Amino acid sequence: MIKTDILIIGAGPTGLFAVFEAGLLQLKCHLIDALPQAGGQCSEIYPKKPIYDIPGFPEVLAGDLVDNLMEQIKPFQPGFTLGERAETIKKLGDGTFVVTTNKGTEHNAPVVAIAGGLGSFEPRKPLLQNLADYEDKGVAYMIKDPEIYRDKKVVLAGGGDSALDWSIFLADVASEVTLVHRRNEFRGALDSVEKVQQLKNEGKINLVTPGEIVGLKGEGKLESVTIRKTSNAAEDIHLKVDEFIPLFGLSPKLGPIADWDLEIEKNAIKVDTFDYQTNIPGVYAIGDVNTYPGKLKLILCGFHEATLMCQSAYQRIFPDKKYVMKYTTVGGISGFDGSKKEAPKAVVKAID
Amino acid sequence: MIKTDILIIGAGPTGLFAVFEAGLLQLKCHLIDALPQAGGQCSEIYPKKPIYDIPGFPEVLAGDLVDNLMEQIKPFQPGFTLGERAETIKKLGDGTFVVTTNKGTEHNAPVVAIAGGLGSFEPRKPLLQNLADYEDKGVAYMIKDPEIYRDKKVVLAGGGDSALDWSIFLADVASEVTLVHRRNEFRGALDSVEKVQQLKNEGKINLVTPGEIVGLKGEGKLESVTIRKTSNAAEDIHLKVDEFIPLFGLSPKLGPIADWDLEIEKNAIKVDTFDYQTNIPGVYAIGDVNTYPGKLKLILCGFHEATLMCQSAYQRIFPDKKYVMKYTTVGGISGFDGSKKEAPKAVVKAID
Repeated sequence: MIKTDILIIGAGPTGLFAVFEAGLLQLKCHLIDALPQAGGQCSEIYPKKPIYDIPGFPEVLAGDLVDNLMEQIKPFQPGFTLGERAETIKKLGDGTFVVTTNKGTEHNAPVVAIAGGLGSFEPRKPLLQNLADYEDKGVAYMIKDPEIYRDKKVVLAGGGDSALDWSIFLADVASEVTLVHRRNEFRGALDSVEKVQQLKNEGKINLVTPGEIVGLKGEGKLESVTIRKTSNAAEDIHLKVDEFIPLFGLSPKLGPIADWDLEIEKNAIKVDTFDYQTNIPGVYAIGDVNTYPGKLKLILCGFHEATLMCQSAYQRIFPDKKYVMKYTTVGGISGFDGSKKEAPKAVVKAID
Repeated sequence: MIKTDILIIGAGPTGLFAVFEAGLLQLKCHLIDALPQAGGQCSEIYPKKPIYDIPGFPEVLAGDLVDNLMEQIKPFQPGFTLGERAETIKKLGDGTFVVTTNKGTEHNAPVVAIAGGLGSFEPRKPLLQNLADYEDKGVAYMIKDPEIYRDKKVVLAGGGDSALDWSIFLADVASEVTLVHRRNEFRGALDSVEKVQQLKNEGKINLVTPGEIVGLKGEGKLESVTIRKTSNAAEDIHLKVDEFIPLFGLSPKLGPIADWDLEIEKNAIKVDTFDYQTNIPGVYAIGDVNTYPGKLKLILCGFHEATLMCQSAYQRIFPDKKYVMKYTTVGGISGFDGSKKEAPKAVVKAID
């Protein structure tokens, strides 16, 4: 059982910044995220896109913002459970919560902060009857570790940036890369489209367009896929493959959290703006996942919400202590790793 | 009469960022500040101090944060009335407001946002009976334009960073610089203390410690000061000077805003967290100047408040328009100066 002070569900910018504000209050955090890395949408969906409305950054790439936040929270040594989805919550007799993931990892904390963004990003799956039979047995919707595909026969499906970028990357790793897309046109960065064209010309990527995967076969694990090029099934291609990676994008779903008895309004969790607490005392919701009058789904608002949440969490964890806020310009930062950052102190010195 | 959409009182980080959020809504802003430059406390009190709790900046100097914000809002061409204090507010028949400064400059806008921080920073003044007689006639509490002191005889008083730094600076500008301080010990950056010691040794700064200015004389303008070194008045020094600059620090005062019929609680303006509006419809208060349940006086909270305020201001100015928020990652930024920033667009391109 992982124990922490504030268990944060969702490792996007809001969840990450909560670690910092909690750290200033000497509270430890642990984050759970369904994605394989921290950063939420910023890392998974648009790492190379510039954001213009983060205060103090005339322009910052989403991926760089995440890197900066990771650097900022480093002194406070957050724990991470990545690639797992928070599934159930249970309140114990001592008032603390146990949150269990889809892989059975258990987390215990007196405070739970849901920073789930638009929800957990679930891959859009192709409609294939026996698809679930091959999940993790040759079928994956996200690439967590590209090394798995070394010297394998891989077929990818999709027409966007993910399909393009991974085809390019795997062309150097896999023994055979086939990319299947329903149209001849791809939608993505110009560079990526041109690179795939080039790799196709060099014979390093087999391109099948227009085409669609319509069948999966294999005993115990995936052994081949059926690719339909025309409406005539007799012309179907049967391709021997080890791995099938459909990359049809991610779709946000509130997911299991919807069943946590939280008050939900328009697919978001209702909170009080005093401290962004939900209807369950001790469970907070911050960032895009929450709603209140005047709510804007902006990263900068999540930062504010995370900050006020931490103050309330502190009061909940230490009901008898009175916290007096210290400005970082005055008190500096004391990391849990023993690090200390502070402004150079003024000297008091005579002049003679 | 200066006309704008949102008149912002206070050009600190919160007021500056409001310009950006207003700009996204195509609203123009004008800022009034009692200080001679934008940035509020960050520029005036601690430009060289690192701040650690601005989201996305593991560390940023206060002065650099202001520079970044100025760069971020540049496309939205804010107007500035600096070195003047907002004195009175009047509501016109058409529902707009006129705000007049202590120097008589008039501003007209349908929305007023008070981003006054801890108040206008008023200089702490020495207790000298006829001090007011010489204000702007040889006595100044802030240095707005150092060129005024070229080839003049200047006496400064104080023992902190301002007194040290301006003595150093003016040593190259004025014909004679005298620094008077009640103690031998100075409190400031080590560099500055050492530099003053060096300039004193070189005869470029006359240092009088311990000492205190106890009298001012002159017909129509300042001509000399009396410096007391001991309790024996017979030993007083009478020094011919053109300019006297007491630098005893700034003390924040809510000032004339306290008389604007706003609901005040603990020296701060009460607002609703829905849109940070005060008890006067159309007048908002954002940043350190406001208060509400759970309020934290942090720059990052001011950013959030400024953002929600702008949405409400838009509704007030355009009651019939429905604003649909566009993300800057998707829509980019369209400056009033014709500039356009946006993410590179995806292409749709066939691969053959």
